[in-house]
Amino acid sequence: MGEDLSYDRNRKTMAAVCGGVEGGGTHSKAMLVSDDGRILAETDGPCTNHWLVGTDKCLEAINDMVQKAKSQAGLDTATPLHSLGLSLSGGEQKEANQKLIAEMHARFPELSRSYHITTDARGAMATASEHGGVVLISGTGSNCKLVKPDGTEVGCGGWGHLMGDEGSAYWISHRAVKTVFDAHDGLVTPPHDIAYVQKAMMQYFQVSNLMGILPHLYKNFQKSHIAGFCRKLAEGASEGDALCRYVFSQAGRVLAQHIVAVLPKAHESVFQGERGLQILCVGSVWNSWEFLRPGFTEVLEGCGSVSFTRYSLLTLRQSSALGGASLGALSVGIKLPLNYAANAKVFYTHSFSSQH
Amino acid sequence: MGEDLSYDRNRKTMAAVCGGVEGGGTHSKAMLVSDDGRILAETDGPCTNHWLVGTDKCLEAINDMVQKAKSQAGLDTATPLHSLGLSLSGGEQKEANQKLIAEMHARFPELSRSYHITTDARGAMATASEHGGVVLISGTGSNCKLVKPDGTEVGCGGWGHLMGDEGSAYWISHRAVKTVFDAHDGLVTPPHDIAYVQKAMMQYFQVSNLMGILPHLYKNFQKSHIAGFCRKLAEGASEGDALCRYVFSQAGRVLAQHIVAVLPKAHESVFQGERGLQILCVGSVWNSWEFLRPGFTEVLEGCGSVSFTRYSLLTLRQSSALGGASLGALSVGIKLPLNYAANAKVFYTHSFSSQH
Repeated sequence: MGEDLSYDRNRKTMAAVCGGVEGGGTHSKAMLVSDDGRILAETDGPCTNHWLVGTDKCLEAINDMVQKAKSQAGLDTATPLHSLGLSLSGGEQKEANQKLIAEMHARFPELSRSYHITTDARGAMATASEHGGVVLISGTGSNCKLVKPDGTEVGCGGWGHLMGDEGSAYWISHRAVKTVFDAHDGLVTPPHDIAYVQKAMMQYFQVSNLMGILPHLYKNFQKSHIAGFCRKLAEGASEGDALCRYVFSQAGRVLAQHIVAVLPKAHESVFQGERGLQILCVGSVWNSWEFLRPGFTEVLEGCGSVSFTRYSLLTLRQSSALGGASLGALSVGIKLPLNYAANAKVFYTHSFSSQH
Repeated sequence: MGEDLSYDRNRKTMAAVCGGVEGGGTHSKAMLVSDDGRILAETDGPCTNHWLVGTDKCLEAINDMVQKAKSQAGLDTATPLHSLGLSLSGGEQKEANQKLIAEMHARFPELSRSYHITTDARGAMATASEHGGVVLISGTGSNCKLVKPDGTEVGCGGWGHLMGDEGSAYWISHRAVKTVFDAHDGLVTPPHDIAYVQKAMMQYFQVSNLMGILPHLYKNFQKSHIAGFCRKLAEGASEGDALCRYVFSQAGRVLAQHIVAVLPKAHESVFQGERGLQILCVGSVWNSWEFLRPGFTEVLEGCGSVSFTRYSLLTLRQSSALGGASLGALSVGIKLPLNYAANAKVFYTHSFSSQH
């Protein structure tokens, strides 16, 4: 693949190749796309959140992934891409982004002729649609961004496990564990029998009593390990356990409340189109949609309006490196013809009944 | 002082001197008491929570404080006390306590002839009363213990800031800060204007926006620093700020809920006596009682019963090293005549109206 895409020795026709990067907090992806929208290569890499790993490691990882992708596509690694669009977790601050770009030019002159940095939310949305909508992330943590058609964003949440993360895997796990603690203390009556959750919790954390949980919360705290318990709760929900289902439904409620929070700042146009409001769902918790659904739909049911008459939940089938590439190309005047219908799949649609 | 308390050279009459230690997570106190109840000496020391500082440091700190107290009382430091009662934060596990005692005997044979270890809650209660009741701690963290007349305990809370601490200074600060975050996000409508709290928060944490708070929550997390913001909120409550008052009242609610949680396990006898249920209030948050009061009294109002017709809130005027000394003495058959009325002060009493 890629061999048919010729480039000449004086570095002119490589203009046809635009790159994109999805930079995550755990792993990353790079993609090369031709100006007719074909994906030429795709490579993987480590965390590229520069707030977590530092600028040097971030830039090196990006360079490695993209150069590897050039080789994979049969392109000359010494020839710069026409554009490179970076959709980065941690790509929110303009000043920091400008610094990153300046360093990129200085350290890796062969990488790309131009750079464009956006947030991970915007890159994800650009992969799914040109019309904007809401990106609702629920993985280890949670976050919600309204991406307007002009690319500007309005956020809700994303403050980490001590100040937010509502509806995330960490939050779901924590809620379940807290329900067990509160039931034992007699502080809060559990909404359902705790037996299943308690047993699953003891097994997952490999402890025999509540005291044993404490080192997992403090001395040996690992957010991802606590969040991992959410998988066991999803299993419990599948097996019909009422408390597991309850906690997921509560997560659905609070995730929907994030959407309600950003809606007042949305332009009319994001409600139009046959899908209505597009809600792009990112992160592993969405695999449990059937259990999030009762709480999620109930909250949104209450907020339909003249403009907000329909919404669709979408999930990506392509890396948001593709959206990054598209935005990067757009920043130098190239509109990549993406196949949005193939890039994201609608998995739920709801229209409000006429009472609204 | 203490010179009139003679001891002979063959270590017999020193039987008259009983020691007590209040072992805290920040600082500690030691006390020597004669068998007629007089306090002979009082000394201070560092943290003696052996879970926090390790066994060696804990034992050395206890030995230092008690030997210093012997000198202060004019006693021979080479003559062991008759008994030493340790009321320790972290003194919950029997096995760990037995180990501590064995090491104490081995390393410091001149310190005391006998040892007795109890929790900080039980030592506090033994300082205030012989009849048991509830110890309700609200300082940096929170905890609630029902101490039965036989010395056994039933707890609620005390799981730290990630799984409990409801109603503590940390919790109050966190609630106030979270209210500001949620208001900015549009996620939760604040119950009152956030202006005062927001300004106080920016000043206290010396930041100019919400992003600036994040390092205080994660990279540079210090529970005590976050809890320290509670003092500013108490000032706000004093100045009449509605949100500050609201958060304190909510803290009062959840503190009272801890009492409601342990009441079903209480023996009838703790409700009797002219004070009714004695609630011993420990920790700096109780300095803001007037703002805790609305929520606190409302929750307890709803749970009066045939037995539970009256309660009194008490605060200690003596170190709970005194209760420790009393329990230590009791363990070797000596009943110290403590002046309970002087050791603790009732600052609020409530009787349920006849409808209950």
